[in-house]
Amino acid sequence: QDQAALQGAAARNSQLTKPPGALGRLEDLAVWYGGWRGSGRPEISAPQVIVFAGNHGVTAQGVSAFPPEVTAQMVINFEHGGAAINQLARLAGARMDVHALELDRPTADFTQGPAMSQAELLTALQAGWDAVDPSADLLVVGEMGIGNTTPAAALACALFGGEAADWTGRGTGVDDAGLASKTRVVAEGVALHKDAIRDGLDALACLGGREIAAMAGAIAAARVLRIPVILDGFICCAAAACLLQTADGALDHALAGHQSAEGAHQALLEKLGKQPLLSLGLRLGEASGAALAIQVLKGAIACHSGMATFAEAGVSDG
Amino acid sequence: QDQAALQGAAARNSQLTKPPGALGRLEDLAVWYGGWRGSGRPEISAPQVIVFAGNHGVTAQGVSAFPPEVTAQMVINFEHGGAAINQLARLAGARMDVHALELDRPTADFTQGPAMSQAELLTALQAGWDAVDPSADLLVVGEMGIGNTTPAAALACALFGGEAADWTGRGTGVDDAGLASKTRVVAEGVALHKDAIRDGLDALACLGGREIAAMAGAIAAARVLRIPVILDGFICCAAAACLLQTADGALDHALAGHQSAEGAHQALLEKLGKQPLLSLGLRLGEASGAALAIQVLKGAIACHSGMATFAEAGVSDG
Repeated sequence: QDQAALQGAAARNSQLTKPPGALGRLEDLAVWYGGWRGSGRPEISAPQVIVFAGNHGVTAQGVSAFPPEVTAQMVINFEHGGAAINQLARLAGARMDVHALELDRPTADFTQGPAMSQAELLTALQAGWDAVDPSADLLVVGEMGIGNTTPAAALACALFGGEAADWTGRGTGVDDAGLASKTRVVAEGVALHKDAIRDGLDALACLGGREIAAMAGAIAAARVLRIPVILDGFICCAAAACLLQTADGALDHALAGHQSAEGAHQALLEKLGKQPLLSLGLRLGEASGAALAIQVLKGAIACHSGMATFAEAGVSDG
Repeated sequence: QDQAALQGAAARNSQLTKPPGALGRLEDLAVWYGGWRGSGRPEISAPQVIVFAGNHGVTAQGVSAFPPEVTAQMVINFEHGGAAINQLARLAGARMDVHALELDRPTADFTQGPAMSQAELLTALQAGWDAVDPSADLLVVGEMGIGNTTPAAALACALFGGEAADWTGRGTGVDDAGLASKTRVVAEGVALHKDAIRDGLDALACLGGREIAAMAGAIAAARVLRIPVILDGFICCAAAACLLQTADGALDHALAGHQSAEGAHQALLEKLGKQPLLSLGLRLGEASGAALAIQVLKGAIACHSGMATFAEAGVSDG
């Protein structure tokens, strides 16, 4: 972060026509954003939303309430503007890009072997990295991939320990039997790859998916480009966790957009040290919660950069 | 609410390209809004933000960290576009109106007698009622009035019981001695008028303020006009509580926009039976939290009315 910009933003915040601290978290958000963008009076004018899609061999284990062909069908829905994220990106004034990652070639079933080879992992990370528009001033990444709460749960379990049941939830809505089976699949995968996982990138290869790796690549690229990121739900946070377990500070440029209804998201946010901006019971993925949270950050920046100071407005400052 | 529209909105929601319930509270919000607007596929195209300002005789008791002249100074700031609410209303695409209510004639100090006469109360209620644009499709009301967390605390205490300390907070930021003094003032006012208060309107006259009564009048007018309302913080909710204590169902058309940092706001929201959309530590008033929450409701409506159905998109519905 740019220390001069941080100080400039904090100084401006203290002069705005409101009691000190009265805008709560909005004040912290604005100063934080200004620090990353190198401006004491920043704007958000070019947010980018990227949705990555991937397919998962582990769906052969019956871990989802939806069939795998829905991934490709939803990509077409994104391209035609019919999904939730299309509406939320438009509302936020964000550019939206969709990247379908070899949907006809699912990852391997991680209960049988690594989900991806090192070469496949690198290709997916690179796809994410390259998808970020360097001229964007805010990035939101999301995913579509039938079955992908299963690799996300496995990643969280492999990275942070605990039981598979602690990290496994209902995803798009599996029933009790489905949840039990999914939990068993996560436990099997984590046990199989335990010895091969030394860091977050190993975990991504063994247990992840192409869209999950691509989100990690995009978040890492944004760090280098000083583009602040709003994290979406459980799967996006699992991708982010792989970066954090690889390099301290890798998520300093990221906010948690929301707490989803997926059971383990709260615990995962705590592991990331992030407090969500919204908590509205969403569990859709697609970057939907993070795209809605763009509005909160925009509100913070609008107040910070648009308000009059006490001196400008001739208001007594108490 | 329009039952046919409610059913139409619920039916549409069940066909959209997402797992059932995956948009969480956004789904409930959209159906609820459609019911009030009489449409199974509603829009928000004309939100209105109204800020009412009033002055309070009880400031003579030293209950605020700011001098009373700040009320009029902030009205000028609103008119010149320099306050937080100006930025947040613009971001929400909302029309914003400001009504200063006889600022040179503060209410009476409620520790000495009723804050307003019946005639003064009616004038303020009417000002609020008349301020609502009948063509608005969403209403947010807020306030500016140095000292007005004190009447709001007194109203909550008179309406819901408990101790003055349960309802009295730091407002714009009084210190410990100020808080103790403010709590004593609230207790004195509630005790003085206890026998005169039979309903919410009596409470408004004895302990309220012009801007508080005007918010109540506007919220009541919106009920008749079927304009959904997003409630702001502690003071707005105290105004709303006066309506609820006067007529059951008076707030069925209202959402809680946010939970503020004012200590008793959570308890007041519970008395109103409302779960806030946002909780970001705001404590500014001016309708700021509710204006930010417009974006959440807009997100809900954008998804509901803009998304493709499973049939339209050719997506398998599980």
